[in-house]
Amino acid sequence: MTNIRVGIVGYGNLGRGVEHAISQNPDMELVAVFTRRDPATVEIASDAKVYLIDEAEKFKDAIDVMILCGGSATDLPEQSPHFSQWFNVIDSFDTHAKIPQHFEAVDTIAQKSEKVAIISSGWDPGLFSLNRLIGEAILPVGSTYTFWGDGLSQGHSDAVRRIEGVKYAAQYTLPIKEAVERVRNGENPVLSTREKHARECWVVVEDGADTAKIEQEIVTMPNYFDEYNTTVHFITEEEFKANHTGMPHGGFVIRSGESGAKEKQILEFSLKLESNPNFTSSVLVAYARAVYRLHQAGDKGAKTAFDIPFGLLSPKSAAELRKELL
Amino acid sequence: MTNIRVGIVGYGNLGRGVEHAISQNPDMELVAVFTRRDPATVEIASDAKVYLIDEAEKFKDAIDVMILCGGSATDLPEQSPHFSQWFNVIDSFDTHAKIPQHFEAVDTIAQKSEKVAIISSGWDPGLFSLNRLIGEAILPVGSTYTFWGDGLSQGHSDAVRRIEGVKYAAQYTLPIKEAVERVRNGENPVLSTREKHARECWVVVEDGADTAKIEQEIVTMPNYFDEYNTTVHFITEEEFKANHTGMPHGGFVIRSGESGAKEKQILEFSLKLESNPNFTSSVLVAYARAVYRLHQAGDKGAKTAFDIPFGLLSPKSAAELRKELL
Repeated sequence: MTNIRVGIVGYGNLGRGVEHAISQNPDMELVAVFTRRDPATVEIASDAKVYLIDEAEKFKDAIDVMILCGGSATDLPEQSPHFSQWFNVIDSFDTHAKIPQHFEAVDTIAQKSEKVAIISSGWDPGLFSLNRLIGEAILPVGSTYTFWGDGLSQGHSDAVRRIEGVKYAAQYTLPIKEAVERVRNGENPVLSTREKHARECWVVVEDGADTAKIEQEIVTMPNYFDEYNTTVHFITEEEFKANHTGMPHGGFVIRSGESGAKEKQILEFSLKLESNPNFTSSVLVAYARAVYRLHQAGDKGAKTAFDIPFGLLSPKSAAELRKELL
Repeated sequence: MTNIRVGIVGYGNLGRGVEHAISQNPDMELVAVFTRRDPATVEIASDAKVYLIDEAEKFKDAIDVMILCGGSATDLPEQSPHFSQWFNVIDSFDTHAKIPQHFEAVDTIAQKSEKVAIISSGWDPGLFSLNRLIGEAILPVGSTYTFWGDGLSQGHSDAVRRIEGVKYAAQYTLPIKEAVERVRNGENPVLSTREKHARECWVVVEDGADTAKIEQEIVTMPNYFDEYNTTVHFITEEEFKANHTGMPHGGFVIRSGESGAKEKQILEFSLKLESNPNFTSSVLVAYARAVYRLHQAGDKGAKTAFDIPFGLLSPKSAAELRKELL
């Protein structure tokens, strides 16, 4: 069996995670990393070569799947369709509201180029989406709940950092225990935003900054904090660097439904992640295997996790999977 | 859109559960129930008709999917291949060791008849299998744990009931909390059978039975109890009927692995079921939808949950799913 030849576009947290995840999968091999920076300045962990992103087209016969590791705001809306003209691709596009239009944009190109493109892979969208789907398909009478955390939110941390006088900030999203317990008990509660999650900020300020004013600005910030109960802790730079530079995350999807004689039936899927980006990378690499296999089988066009049988994610054969894991 | 026309073979706990689950799914309709008993003696909950199992062939153009609700020991090894000659079928065959041969037997017939047959659907095998697969595909470096319970084990309850002097018996399988906690903490422990699960029996004896002797027979019973710590409670018939006639079950599949810089990453899927057979029924009905759609799309042969994209389980269109659930 020949290895699946993989390329990485973008070498930030996600790209580095993908590089490592590939090393955990003996049926895959990293061919090259593509970057917008000067390749000479980009040091990578493996023996693969680094190229300018504009050189990627030359690799169209040397790379089976291109893993796109850019951001959802500006990189992927442009890169996913662009690279689909030459490559099978996978991305982790996670702007929920724009998924339908991203899907259409990628599908149009991938249908024409006869390549396979999986979009919005990862854990949410991704594994959590799968569990939302199967929960309601199996128990059509019931309610679905998604809780996130405990986890670092990059977007909220950035929002706090933009406040004048803030030097460093980490914002954690915390599911509220009482709400989770009620859901796990099958109470099917109606929960407001404030009842589901709380927010906690750990902030380092510039010398002489007005902490009372900063705290007020945080807790009242529209869209980000005003609908939540938010706790703000001001700490030293040392404490910040010791305790708040990791990127933990996780959460749970719970489907609470009923069957036949009104019995409560509860499904729960949960993740406890010490590194959010490295876990997303691991998901991308498993789904890259599915991209490759679908293309080998003559498939084409844009797909999501909903379209992918789990068997395609594993290096094992269908017969091995039935024997060992069913 | 025309409804999916469903037939049920076998009207025990599972068949009754399937009948109810169909009523929760507006795109499905129950056409008929087939039984080995005298149809006149079988009262069912819905308006569907009851027929002798030997009359099923006549319905081959009137039923899209036949849901086989027999047992794995003797019914399904015979029925699943047999009905595959005329129908798309789904079963919940759960004798893990014999799945490969069952798959081959069904596949041979279904390939010839150009029907689709999903075997071994349910929660274990089934949903738990899917989570074992995706856990190791995403985190190839790690360990997978399956715990069952708290749940009633029919097989173990029957084994206790066969002991002389026992009138009623219910046996619960209990995951051992300390073991579960160690796994959830990412310790990746090596656990013996005894360290993973305990067994608890609630027993009603005949008048004058020797309870000490019965207890000794239970806890030393080879294959069933000797490798576990087992607690035996002798109770009255009233207490038994009040508290031990339900069929709760559940459990969890945990994958504890590591990514990039040795971060612990933990996936957990859990079920808490008030009715084990009714939940299995709900799973069968969702997968029956996939059977129908695969056949509509020209597919054929035996499949397992590993071969089925989740999107096929939902009545919603692919575009709706992407918009609402991704």
